[in-house]
Amino acid sequence: MKVGVLGFGTVAAATVQKFIENREVIATKTSTEIDIVAVATRSVARTAGHVPQGCEISADCWEVVNDSRIDVVIELIGGVEAARELVLRAIANGKHVITANKALLAMHGEEIMQLAEQRRVCVLFEGAVAVSIPIVKTLKESAAANRVTSVVGILNGTSNYILSRMSEQGASFSDALADAQKKGYAEADPSMDIEGIDAAHKIALLSSLAFGVPVDFEAVQYRGITGIAREDIDIANEMGYVLRLIARAQLQDNCIYTSVAPTLVPASSMLAQVRSSMNGIELVGDLFGRAFFYGSGAGGVQTASAILADLIELARREKDGECAGAFNMGFRRTTIERKETMHTDDHSSRFYLRMRCEDAVGVLANVSAILAGADISLSRLCQNDGVGAVTDVVAVTHAVSWRRLRSILPKLQRLTGRDYGVVVYPVLDEPTEVKV
Amino acid sequence: MKVGVLGFGTVAAATVQKFIENREVIATKTSTEIDIVAVATRSVARTAGHVPQGCEISADCWEVVNDSRIDVVIELIGGVEAARELVLRAIANGKHVITANKALLAMHGEEIMQLAEQRRVCVLFEGAVAVSIPIVKTLKESAAANRVTSVVGILNGTSNYILSRMSEQGASFSDALADAQKKGYAEADPSMDIEGIDAAHKIALLSSLAFGVPVDFEAVQYRGITGIAREDIDIANEMGYVLRLIARAQLQDNCIYTSVAPTLVPASSMLAQVRSSMNGIELVGDLFGRAFFYGSGAGGVQTASAILADLIELARREKDGECAGAFNMGFRRTTIERKETMHTDDHSSRFYLRMRCEDAVGVLANVSAILAGADISLSRLCQNDGVGAVTDVVAVTHAVSWRRLRSILPKLQRLTGRDYGVVVYPVLDEPTEVKV
Repeated sequence: MKVGVLGFGTVAAATVQKFIENREVIATKTSTEIDIVAVATRSVARTAGHVPQGCEISADCWEVVNDSRIDVVIELIGGVEAARELVLRAIANGKHVITANKALLAMHGEEIMQLAEQRRVCVLFEGAVAVSIPIVKTLKESAAANRVTSVVGILNGTSNYILSRMSEQGASFSDALADAQKKGYAEADPSMDIEGIDAAHKIALLSSLAFGVPVDFEAVQYRGITGIAREDIDIANEMGYVLRLIARAQLQDNCIYTSVAPTLVPASSMLAQVRSSMNGIELVGDLFGRAFFYGSGAGGVQTASAILADLIELARREKDGECAGAFNMGFRRTTIERKETMHTDDHSSRFYLRMRCEDAVGVLANVSAILAGADISLSRLCQNDGVGAVTDVVAVTHAVSWRRLRSILPKLQRLTGRDYGVVVYPVLDEPTEVKV
Repeated sequence: MKVGVLGFGTVAAATVQKFIENREVIATKTSTEIDIVAVATRSVARTAGHVPQGCEISADCWEVVNDSRIDVVIELIGGVEAARELVLRAIANGKHVITANKALLAMHGEEIMQLAEQRRVCVLFEGAVAVSIPIVKTLKESAAANRVTSVVGILNGTSNYILSRMSEQGASFSDALADAQKKGYAEADPSMDIEGIDAAHKIALLSSLAFGVPVDFEAVQYRGITGIAREDIDIANEMGYVLRLIARAQLQDNCIYTSVAPTLVPASSMLAQVRSSMNGIELVGDLFGRAFFYGSGAGGVQTASAILADLIELARREKDGECAGAFNMGFRRTTIERKETMHTDDHSSRFYLRMRCEDAVGVLANVSAILAGADISLSRLCQNDGVGAVTDVVAVTHAVSWRRLRSILPKLQRLTGRDYGVVVYPVLDEPTEVKV
């Protein structure tokens, strides 16, 4: 099986290096010989000496996707538009594709998977989400007989590193971000990670795999962690919660809710144990019940592990059976159909609210009255006197729709000081026992 | 694809029931029609009405394994000898086999896998270990490019339920066992579970999948939880540990250590969060680093989830490729070879020791002297005065071989009261950051 690699950044270099280093291990896992015969990179000179013997280094990705010797293209150039054209061409040329490009699949997954089915090729992408957790395979294969109803995860290591540092070392958001950049967990422009876009790409893919719907990035309602205040992290901790950037895809009444938002998670939950740059995912299915997975979410070598597993899988399927291409997203393609999207307005959740008020007299009574007036019941209401004349009023509601809560925000806003807003985060319920 | 089921106990009944109930879901996951055409059970009358339309119910398992219409046999009769003969016959007849029978595979896995390779059929067994955790598939496929070095898990739900109850509700071992029996977590004869045999079967399978060695139940050094004392659970908790029945398969210097033993686990670890009858498994590989998986370990419906996933996998491989049979244990069969087994004597670990002494005068000094004399250093030594004249001396060692520790046990024994022994459990080290 002849393989071509597009790109030679961190992940591609690690993939090729580990392919060489672990060649003996890989040879025990398949009867088919695998050869990396071409790498396309802009840095041809720097790449020499880092590829297997006999592997050609080209400056042109098109040469690789048009190379008739090549059976499998591993796309690792990143970005969306150029990657899309190259991947579509590779598929049109009858090549299997392995990619770790979540942005590409989130934006153009349907187009890619449709062409892959027509051309009967495999598009594998375990390296696109939570690389050390085999979540793609688990949803496509291990959970295949289940009606999956919930996928809730910490899918962005950068955000989790920042929130962990804020929670555990008392850092401010900007210090934690600077530290993450220094340590290589965050990029110079961190917006994809901290604005929740990366996690939104990933949950769009997991939603498709879990529920058999088309990949639909537009359906994900996302919000990042920029400017999260220390106070909210500390108050959450005091109440027995931790603040995490939670991505979720949930099926309720045949309607799908996909979102990314900073969320209070019970400190006793498995998700709360996911610290630093790690990832964690909780799945619920009607047969297996509740399961939880934990592992690295990024890193060149860890991503190489997922990419090479996909490569070994292709090598084991020496002869393309009828099924090639038809199950790239787990479901038979003709059964993949849109489901209704639940708008955030309609989604019910418990919510955490914090209002900073300059004048505390009667404020608790006012807050209760406003909430009671909208028929929103509370599991918690308290007042923390802050520095100077300000007071934080904190409330945790019982489950209520965002629409209803949103309707009273202007009233609550009027209680806060001129310079402050109302801070609102959803609260994840304690995991309940799943009846199976 | 025509399927025959052997047995109609809890797991088989749940598998058939969920196959019927989730038929629509399953139909979206494969292009091949799957039919359960025969069930063999001793309770023919009771089974009628619980099988799909047109499914024959037979009192004779041999009829099913010899039925030429049948492509796949699901073996769920349990036990070893009859199951072995039926499975071998099914394979000899060219049928794929799905089984949840860990005892069968632990004892006769090699014979079964060898015949399966000759006959080029698949033997799938995700339901044999930690049913809601796709650990078999993860080791065979997702970790395929890695050198896996460690599999450490809580694989027996009954034992974990008992230990959790002792730790969290202060129950005695016998009360916790009685409670587990009342709730259906333990059988009337609980010995397979509480003596560590069930976990030993499972770790023998995982060791083979992780390291590419033959399945070797004899290599597993196991010890159960019978008669564990409350004191040790309480002292462990006070020191920041929990006592769990830990199964492990670890590769050190190309030598394999497989064991099952009550073990102190750091309270902050993921394994310590595995409570009640749940299972948890921690994996270490040279590429993916450290990953952790959590889910149900047993239950009819949960096992059905794993069995039906295996069935869907077979249906997706409509045409048997060259690979069928060759990768039933993840590794190419010709590369599977014995590695040296590490005897417990040679295994290094930290150890917890408790000695109950009737006369406490000078006992701490004596214990230190004995340990120092054998060059065993301590991370902890303390004395807890008990009820009456007895005193518990507790020590936690740094890493030392069991051989060396064992050599001084007679001396330590002489310090304890006539009616007491020295209690010894291994201590699992804090997970260290894995360098990848």
